[in-house]
Amino acid sequence: MRAMRIGVLTSGGDCPGLNAVIRSVVHRATVDHGDEVIGFQDGWKGLLECDYRKLDLDAVSGILALGGTILGSTRVRPEHLRDGAERAKGHVAELGLDAVIPIGGEGTLKAARLLSDAGLPIVGVPKTIDNDIASTDVTFGFDTAVGVATEALDRLKTTAESHQRVLIVEVMGRHTGWIALHSGMAAGAHAIVVPERPFDIEELARTVGERFEAGKKFAIVVVAEGAKPREGTMDYEAGGKDVYGHERFAGIAHHLSVELERRLGKEARAVILGHVQRGGTPTAYDRVLATRFGWHAVEAVHRGEFGTITALRGTDIGLVPLSAAVERLKTVPAERYAEAECVL
Amino acid sequence: MRAMRIGVLTSGGDCPGLNAVIRSVVHRATVDHGDEVIGFQDGWKGLLECDYRKLDLDAVSGILALGGTILGSTRVRPEHLRDGAERAKGHVAELGLDAVIPIGGEGTLKAARLLSDAGLPIVGVPKTIDNDIASTDVTFGFDTAVGVATEALDRLKTTAESHQRVLIVEVMGRHTGWIALHSGMAAGAHAIVVPERPFDIEELARTVGERFEAGKKFAIVVVAEGAKPREGTMDYEAGGKDVYGHERFAGIAHHLSVELERRLGKEARAVILGHVQRGGTPTAYDRVLATRFGWHAVEAVHRGEFGTITALRGTDIGLVPLSAAVERLKTVPAERYAEAECVL
Amino acid sequence: MRAMRIGVLTSGGDCPGLNAVIRSVVHRATVDHGDEVIGFQDGWKGLLECDYRKLDLDAVSGILALGGTILGSTRVRPEHLRDGAERAKGHVAELGLDAVIPIGGEGTLKAARLLSDAGLPIVGVPKTIDNDIASTDVTFGFDTAVGVATEALDRLKTTAESHQRVLIVEVMGRHTGWIALHSGMAAGAHAIVVPERPFDIEELARTVGERFEAGKKFAIVVVAEGAKPREGTMDYEAGGKDVYGHERFAGIAHHLSVELERRLGKEARAVILGHVQRGGTPTAYDRVLATRFGWHAVEAVHRGEFGTITALRGTDIGLVPLSAAVERLKTVPAERYAEAECVL
Amino acid sequence: MRAMRIGVLTSGGDCPGLNAVIRSVVHRATVDHGDEVIGFQDGWKGLLECDYRKLDLDAVSGILALGGTILGSTRVRPEHLRDGAERAKGHVAELGLDAVIPIGGEGTLKAARLLSDAGLPIVGVPKTIDNDIASTDVTFGFDTAVGVATEALDRLKTTAESHQRVLIVEVMGRHTGWIALHSGMAAGAHAIVVPERPFDIEELARTVGERFEAGKKFAIVVVAEGAKPREGTMDYEAGGKDVYGHERFAGIAHHLSVELERRLGKEARAVILGHVQRGGTPTAYDRVLATRFGWHAVEAVHRGEFGTITALRGTDIGLVPLSAAVERLKTVPAERYAEAECVL
Repeated sequence: MRAMRIGVLTSGGDCPGLNAVIRSVVHRATVDHGDEVIGFQDGWKGLLECDYRKLDLDAVSGILALGGTILGSTRVRPEHLRDGAERAKGHVAELGLDAVIPIGGEGTLKAARLLSDAGLPIVGVPKTIDNDIASTDVTFGFDTAVGVATEALDRLKTTAESHQRVLIVEVMGRHTGWIALHSGMAAGAHAIVVPERPFDIEELARTVGERFEAGKKFAIVVVAEGAKPREGTMDYEAGGKDVYGHERFAGIAHHLSVELERRLGKEARAVILGHVQRGGTPTAYDRVLATRFGWHAVEAVHRGEFGTITALRGTDIGLVPLSAAVERLKTVPAERYAEAECVL
Repeated sequence: MRAMRIGVLTSGGDCPGLNAVIRSVVHRATVDHGDEVIGFQDGWKGLLECDYRKLDLDAVSGILALGGTILGSTRVRPEHLRDGAERAKGHVAELGLDAVIPIGGEGTLKAARLLSDAGLPIVGVPKTIDNDIASTDVTFGFDTAVGVATEALDRLKTTAESHQRVLIVEVMGRHTGWIALHSGMAAGAHAIVVPERPFDIEELARTVGERFEAGKKFAIVVVAEGAKPREGTMDYEAGGKDVYGHERFAGIAHHLSVELERRLGKEARAVILGHVQRGGTPTAYDRVLATRFGWHAVEAVHRGEFGTITALRGTDIGLVPLSAAVERLKTVPAERYAEAECVL
Repeated sequence: MRAMRIGVLTSGGDCPGLNAVIRSVVHRATVDHGDEVIGFQDGWKGLLECDYRKLDLDAVSGILALGGTILGSTRVRPEHLRDGAERAKGHVAELGLDAVIPIGGEGTLKAARLLSDAGLPIVGVPKTIDNDIASTDVTFGFDTAVGVATEALDRLKTTAESHQRVLIVEVMGRHTGWIALHSGMAAGAHAIVVPERPFDIEELARTVGERFEAGKKFAIVVVAEGAKPREGTMDYEAGGKDVYGHERFAGIAHHLSVELERRLGKEARAVILGHVQRGGTPTAYDRVLATRFGWHAVEAVHRGEFGTITALRGTDIGLVPLSAAVERLKTVPAERYAEAECVL
Repeated sequence: MRAMRIGVLTSGGDCPGLNAVIRSVVHRATVDHGDEVIGFQDGWKGLLECDYRKLDLDAVSGILALGGTILGSTRVRPEHLRDGAERAKGHVAELGLDAVIPIGGEGTLKAARLLSDAGLPIVGVPKTIDNDIASTDVTFGFDTAVGVATEALDRLKTTAESHQRVLIVEVMGRHTGWIALHSGMAAGAHAIVVPERPFDIEELARTVGERFEAGKKFAIVVVAEGAKPREGTMDYEAGGKDVYGHERFAGIAHHLSVELERRLGKEARAVILGHVQRGGTPTAYDRVLATRFGWHAVEAVHRGEFGTITALRGTDIGLVPLSAAVERLKTVPAERYAEAECVL
C-alpha cells in the first residue's frame, strides 16, 4: 500500500472528541501507513484559503482527552463553499492530497457531499452532540453531553427536593430530543419535553401538578432548547435567526418556569446549561468511538472508498455514502418515549 | 455529663453539607453522650408548628454524601419569627429540649439571635455557599459551589478557544464575589466581575478586547449574579423582589453578552449555572468541615456555651457569639483582587 | 392485559446499574401494568429461602443513581441451585408469581437456564462489568467500569510524565480484556495486555523500552487482571481458587512492575484499582441501558416470552434465548486490537 | 521596584498544583514586575547542571489545571546537593538570578535551607499531598489527594454494602495520617488507621466485628500506607528501603485484609489507590492555594525576604523562616481523632 497525503479539518459547533479523531487519523496514517497528514485551520475556511499545518505525532501528543479542536473551527455559509469548490480542488491538487477527511455535523457533511460531487476524494467523520445523524447508531460527543446534563440533574434533584421547587433544565437539542431523553431517563426526570412533540403547557402543568398532589415535594422538567409549544397553546417566540440562518434558541426554560410557577403556585426556577455540554474532556465512550472513527476513516482512504462517512452499527464501524448520511434527521422514535415514561 | 435532648433544624437556601452536619450532630450526641436528637421539619417552621421527628443513627445512615437536607427547609419571614418567639419557647419547654441547633445562613443566624435573646438555648452552625459570614474563615458548601463552577469553566475554556468566543459565566453571589473570585482564579478566567466593585462596561470591553488584539482567540468572563454596573455606565435593572424581599437576581450574564458582542464584534454567549452550584454531593472538604461543625456544636451544647455559632479559624473550630456572627458581611478584600490579576 | 406478580433478584458480583434495573422493572410493572413486584433478598438465596419483600414505587425511590443493589447479592454454588430447583418452583407457585426476573452475569444466567429448563417462567437481564456476554452488544456496568479506569489513567499519565516512570495499571477482566482495551484506548495507554493474548514479557519490555529510547519519559501499561504470560516466558502463578472455585486474580501488575523495572532500569509502579471499578454511581449510559433492560424485561414477561434475556443490538433492545446467552464468552476480536495500536 | 531574574524549580514526588504555582510565579513576575523567569529542569538537578529554559506567558499557557509539572522533577540525594552548593551558587551568579523559588516537600525544603545557609537567595513554596508540613495550615495537593480517595471510598461503600464485605483501602501518608483521616471522615469510614497510632490487630478486628454483630453488612477501613502494628501484635515488615533511603511502603492493606478475613470469617478485600492520588487535575481549592503561593513567593522575592517559605495561616498567606519550616512533621493531633469517632 503506497503512502499518502491526507488533509483533515474540523467544522461546525464544538463537540467533545474532535481532538481524539484528529489524533487517531494522524497515528493510524503516519505510524501504520507512512502517510503525511496536514490539518486545515478553522474548518473549510482553511481549505478555501490554503491555511494549513503539518500534523505529526508530536503535534497530536497529549490531545486525546482535550476538549475543543486544535485545528479550530468556523462556520462557513453553504453558498460560500459552493462558489469555492473549484478553489478547494485547486488547493487539494496543489498540495498533492490523496484525500480530505472533514469532521463535522449535518452542515459540514452537506458541504462535504457538494465537494465530493465536485470530484474531491472525501471520507467524512460525523460529529454532533445532538446525535441526530441517521446513518450512525451514535455520534461521539453525545455521551459527554448527556453525561454533563445528567450530572447537573443529579445535583439539582437533591436541592429541588429539600426546597420544594420545580426546576426546569434546558439542555441542547435544536431539532431533536436525544440529549433531553437520555439525560432525563438517566436522572429520573419527571417530565421530558422534546422538539419532536410540541408540548401543551396545560398538560405539562397538570403532569407536574399531579406529582405534588400525590405528596411529592419537587419536580424536575428537562426541556430541549428546540422544544416548542403546540400551536395556539402558549405565547412563545424563539429568538430570531443568527448570521448563518440558524434560529437562535434561548430561553424556553425561562418561559416554562414563568408559566409553571403561575399555574402551580410553586416556586419554579430555570437552569440553562448551554455550552458546558459541548466543551471539555470527552467521556471514555466518546474517546473510544472518536478514535475508532479516525482509524476507519484512514482505512477507507487507503481502500479508495470516497464519498462516504464512517458510521457505528452495533459494535462495528462501517461506511455509509455521503448522500445517505444527510438525507434526513434522526429524530426520537415514538417507542423510545414509552420507555422513558415521562415524555409528554 | 448528663444526657440531653437536642433539636436540630436546617433553614434557608440549599447548601451541600447540611446532611453531613445533621449526621454528625446525631452521631456525636447519641453515641458519645447518650443524648436524644430530634429534627424539626422545614426549618423554623417546624419549630413554630412543633413538627418534628426523632433522629437516631438509622435516620442518618447513608446521608453523609447526600445533597440537600433530609429535614427540609423553608424560608420564614423575620417578622413571622419575632411574633412566634414565645410559641417557640413553649415548644422547646414542652419537648424538654436542652438546646436547639439551627443550621443556616445570615437570615437564619439573625433569627437565631432573636430567639437566643428571647432566652432559647441556641448553638448555631453557619451555612452559606456564598462564604460571606465574617466570623468564620470558611463555610461548608462554598468549596462545592466553587468546584462546580470551576468544572463548568474548565469545560467552557476548550470550547471557547476552538470556536473563538467570549463566554460570560454567571455564578452565585448576591452580595459578595467569593465564588466568582475562587472559581475564576481556579479556572484562569480573563475577567472576574464581583458585586463589591460596580463595573464599567467600557473598561470590561476594553480588557477583553485587548486580549483579542494580543492574538488570543477567546475570553472567559466570570460574573457574580449580584454584580452591578457602575452608576450611569450601562442600563441594567435587576429583576425586582421576591416574596421574602430578596432581590431576584438573574440575567446579568445575558446583559453582558449582548453588550460585549455589540462592542467587540465577537460572538458572546452567556451560561447561567444557577442552582447546580448549591445541590448535590458535597466535596470532601465540605463534608469534613460540616462534620466538624456538627461535632463542635454538640460539645458547645454540653458545655452550655449558648448564644454562639461554630467557626473555623485556621485549622481549629471555635465558637463566636451570635451577635458578632451577623454583624457584617464578609466581602472580598482589595488585596485578594490583586492576587487574581483580573478582577476589574 | 392482566396484572401480574413478578419476582426480581440480583445475583453475582457488583455492577453499577443494578438498582436502575430494579427501579425500572417496578415502575413499568406497577405504573403501566398494575402488576405487583417483589424482590428476593440476596440473589438466588432469597428465592431458595423464600426471603423477599414487596417493591412498590416508594421502595425504589431515589435508587436510580445509587451503586450496589438494594436487594443484596450473594453467590450460590451451581450444585446448590440444581438441588434447589424444586424448592424454587414451590416458592414461585406459593407466591403466585407469573415470572422471575434474575439480573446477573454468566453464572446467574446459567442458573437461570437451569431453572427455566425446570419449568420456571424466567426473563433474565444480563449484567457484567466485564462485557463478556456474547448475545448483547454491551452490558450495563461496563461503561462505568471503563470510565473509572480511564479517569485513574488520566490522573496517572501526568504524574508518570513528570516523574519518569513506568506505571502498570491493573483493571478488571478475568477472562476478557474489554475494560483494558477500552480504558487503554480512551486514555492513550502505551501497551494493553489482555487475557485473550498471553504476553511475552520480553516483548512487552522491548515495546516499553523503545518508547524511552525514542525520547519519551514515561509509559503507561494497562493490564487486565486475568492476563497471563505466554507459557515458559515468565514465572507467574495466579492466586489459587476461592471457595466458589473462581481463580483468585491479584497481582499481575505487581509482577509486571518488578519484571519491567529489572529489565528497563526505570522506576516502575503498580496501581490496582480493584473494586472501585464496580461500585458507585453508574454513568448516564449505564443508567439508560439498565432502565431500558428493565422496561423490556417486563414487556417480555407480559408477552410470555420466557426463557430469554434482554439484549442490546445496535440501538434496539431485543430478546435472546437463555440457551444462546451462555453459550460462549465474548472475547476481544483480533480486529479490535488493530484499532488500539498497542495491544501486544 | 526594579525588574528581576528569578529561577523556579519543582522537586520531589508529584503533587497536583505544581503547574499552578509555576504559572502564577510567571504571571505575577513578568506581567506585574517585568521580571524574567527561568525554569530549571528536573528539580535541583537542573540547578546543579545549569539545565534550564525561559518561562514566559506562552510557556505556561494552559497549564493551570494540568497535573504533574512541566519542569519535571527528580530526587537528588542530600549529600549530592551539599557537595554541589558551590556549583549551584556559581550557576546562580552566572545566570544573574536574583532569587530561586524551589517548590517542594520536606526533603526539598531541607535542601533549600542548606543552600540558603550557603548564601543563595531563596523563597520556597511548600508542597506535599501528605499535608505534614507544620508551618502552614494546609499544602496544595492535599485537597486533591483527599478528594480522589474520598471518591473511591464513596464507590466502594455501595459495593461493600451490597456484597457483604470488609474493604480495606490504603491511601497515601508515610508518616502522617492526614489523608486517611480526612478521606475517612468525608466518606464515613468505619475505622481509620494512621501511622501516628500503631494499631492492635485484635482491637481492629473487634471494632469491625462489633459492626457486623450489630447487624451491619459491611465495613470500610481506611489505612495510611505508613501505618504499623503495635509492637508484638502482628507480624509485619514494610518493604525495605529504596535507593534514596526512603522506606518502601506497600501492602499494609493486603496484610490487614488477610488478617481480618481470618479473624472475622468475612470476605475482606484490599484496594490500593497509589499514585492516582498524586496525579491529574488539581481541585479548585488546590489551584487557588497554589496560585496564591506563587504570587506571594514573587512578592517576597521583591521585598528581599529570603530564607523563607510561603505559608497559609487562616485565610492569609504569610512567610515562615526556612529553619522553622523543616523543624518537625505536622502529625494528626489527638483531638482530631475524637472528631472522627473511628480512629483506633
